[in-house]
Amino acid sequence: MQPENLFSQSARLMQPSPIRRMAGLVNQPGVISFAGGMPNPATFPDQDLRLILDEIVGQDGARIFQYGVTRGLQEFCELLAGLLAHRGIDVGSGQGLMVTNGSQQGLNLVSQVFLDPGDVVLVESPSYVGALACFRNHQAELVGVAQDEDGIVPEELDERAAALAAAGKRVKFLYCIPNFQNPSGVTITPARRARIVEMARRHGFLIVEDDPYGELYFTGVTPEDVRPLKALPDGEDVIYLSSFSKVVTPGLRTAYLAGPEWVIARLELAKQAADLCSSSLDQRLIYEYCRRGLYATHLQEVRDFYDVKCQAMLAAMDRFMPQAITWTRPRGGMFLWGTLPEGLDAEVLAMEAVQRLQVAFIHGAPFFVDGSGQNTFRLTFAKEDVPAIEQGVHLLAEFFRAKIG
Amino acid sequence: MQPENLFSQSARLMQPSPIRRMAGLVNQPGVISFAGGMPNPATFPDQDLRLILDEIVGQDGARIFQYGVTRGLQEFCELLAGLLAHRGIDVGSGQGLMVTNGSQQGLNLVSQVFLDPGDVVLVESPSYVGALACFRNHQAELVGVAQDEDGIVPEELDERAAALAAAGKRVKFLYCIPNFQNPSGVTITPARRARIVEMARRHGFLIVEDDPYGELYFTGVTPEDVRPLKALPDGEDVIYLSSFSKVVTPGLRTAYLAGPEWVIARLELAKQAADLCSSSLDQRLIYEYCRRGLYATHLQEVRDFYDVKCQAMLAAMDRFMPQAITWTRPRGGMFLWGTLPEGLDAEVLAMEAVQRLQVAFIHGAPFFVDGSGQNTFRLTFAKEDVPAIEQGVHLLAEFFRAKIG
Repeated sequence: MQPENLFSQSARLMQPSPIRRMAGLVNQPGVISFAGGMPNPATFPDQDLRLILDEIVGQDGARIFQYGVTRGLQEFCELLAGLLAHRGIDVGSGQGLMVTNGSQQGLNLVSQVFLDPGDVVLVESPSYVGALACFRNHQAELVGVAQDEDGIVPEELDERAAALAAAGKRVKFLYCIPNFQNPSGVTITPARRARIVEMARRHGFLIVEDDPYGELYFTGVTPEDVRPLKALPDGEDVIYLSSFSKVVTPGLRTAYLAGPEWVIARLELAKQAADLCSSSLDQRLIYEYCRRGLYATHLQEVRDFYDVKCQAMLAAMDRFMPQAITWTRPRGGMFLWGTLPEGLDAEVLAMEAVQRLQVAFIHGAPFFVDGSGQNTFRLTFAKEDVPAIEQGVHLLAEFFRAKIG
Repeated sequence: MQPENLFSQSARLMQPSPIRRMAGLVNQPGVISFAGGMPNPATFPDQDLRLILDEIVGQDGARIFQYGVTRGLQEFCELLAGLLAHRGIDVGSGQGLMVTNGSQQGLNLVSQVFLDPGDVVLVESPSYVGALACFRNHQAELVGVAQDEDGIVPEELDERAAALAAAGKRVKFLYCIPNFQNPSGVTITPARRARIVEMARRHGFLIVEDDPYGELYFTGVTPEDVRPLKALPDGEDVIYLSSFSKVVTPGLRTAYLAGPEWVIARLELAKQAADLCSSSLDQRLIYEYCRRGLYATHLQEVRDFYDVKCQAMLAAMDRFMPQAITWTRPRGGMFLWGTLPEGLDAEVLAMEAVQRLQVAFIHGAPFFVDGSGQNTFRLTFAKEDVPAIEQGVHLLAEFFRAKIG
């Protein structure tokens, strides 16, 4: 067999994640890791889930192990509709909602339903590598739009969209992570959200709003600060994705997607061919966890858990980092984004840091679609405890200081 | 928003399953259903699974709820390698194996990795509608190859492949369900399997072997009768899919796929973008179920469970059906395939039967890719008990007899 003659165009474009390549080094014992992007398992309510599992399998018996419907278990969808209503999103009679295996599946189905080769996706610069891989696998052209501390810059979005249209390109959607973005940690301000929705409407592209961190906000943030674009007056066409991965557990692949009915109907057909249905057990488990009111209490505990770590990292950055380095000040989520002086290569430094200091972080370039960002990096405060965060930041600060010279 | 301007070519081709359209009628109380394709929940070992769940979450705690690796849990993959070895399939050092969310996901990933618009997929005529939807969503051209009671007809396969090559078409793979095929119930003979593998090699296309029913064989069948194409001397390039959906439970989405390493490596990249990983809990649960030796005992019980029903259906068919109707004699799986005299429209009859007799079956045309099969139908013996099977077949036989006139 000659593989290259058989692979599709899509398969030829697929690349291993540049971040995962470092995984072997990062996960060695003794390493203080600010790399990775997984939630901290200390936040997983495993004993509550254990009790619920026993009860629901005892009660429901075999029924819980049958194929489910493609859109998701009826009772789970109703619960999700209520949860979304709480965030200001109306899914009508429930026709505007679907369960997915993590938001990653949602992003892949959206790509399949909207992207033909050469179509343009606008993305925040930098953006989530898993989404970029998805869009690339569907042969889309990715165009980055700059962010500042208030999120994506509307003027640049407007210019890009106009220039692309003028060049005869088809912009299908803007992909954005409005709250505590991965990787930048920044949040789009309410004023900008309204402008972005208006622009999408005017230019005729969709918005794909990926919001895994929206509920994971820290002290001082109000629900109004993280109000979804989809909840805005003209936001009904927005495709909104969220998940239980960061606030309950990621191993149960239970995410959801809200959108206009004409979009959900097509996504359902795509999911039917993609995997028929999501795990019945996982859905039922998360449903019961929420129904019993455990989610609300747990969520506040998870917020506090990460808030403490975030404040510890910011305090250590303020105290130790050289003046030539800048970083964002996240108010939720799991990530902080740093910029080194021009000319420093964060990829080289990341490799050296994990080997010499045993402190791991992620270089920023893979999060950009235009080859820029060589001097940027991402830190997560999710994994380590406060003393390790302080020690790791201190070591990293001295390491960077020596490199800046 | 103008949907049709935004949808991809793929999305425009997506169609609701013609079978699911009947679901509302079929699932009404009082209906004897030979329609549907779900395993019988009476075979699901829910109480064993309940005990295991409690133990594994108690033991492993939070760890069990973390993201997993894309290929599947290490220990589960090792167990699967052993299970495949038992069927004569060598996955080497384990690099030739991946876990998927049901075989449906495996089929979709294979489609993504191999199919560009216009590529040809050869399929058995008739074939599984879920696979056909998958290939169609990837804009493939589907070409049917006839089956008889010994499975796909090798001479026709050879002719089709040669004619397609001569016409400048790219045949990427043959999709086949070698054992107790859905929908036909037929099994490819060992001699034909060897010829098919040889032809694929000669014509330069792959074989995608979908084997959800291979272990679900009845009295009189030997493992040699169901030996996978991939286990044959020149079968190392075959992509083999199987699943726990029919023999343990389908709600836990735990299937697996074995193939050459160069294929699995690319499928892993596709799955990473498709959903990152499968449910950790589901994998761990099925792993423990097998590791404890429960699977082997259970499997024999499931075989016996369906064998009794199948024999009851065949006996009732022999006894009641008019001579003008023919049907297959499955030796495993869940389905039996019938052919009415030319000119009768099974779709019309299926609708009338469910409404008037309250007996449901599935018309055969959607399983064909060339518009034929109007006078064919599929029956499952999986759902009803023996008295209902006898009663339903009797009613149906009288109904058909009246139509034949």
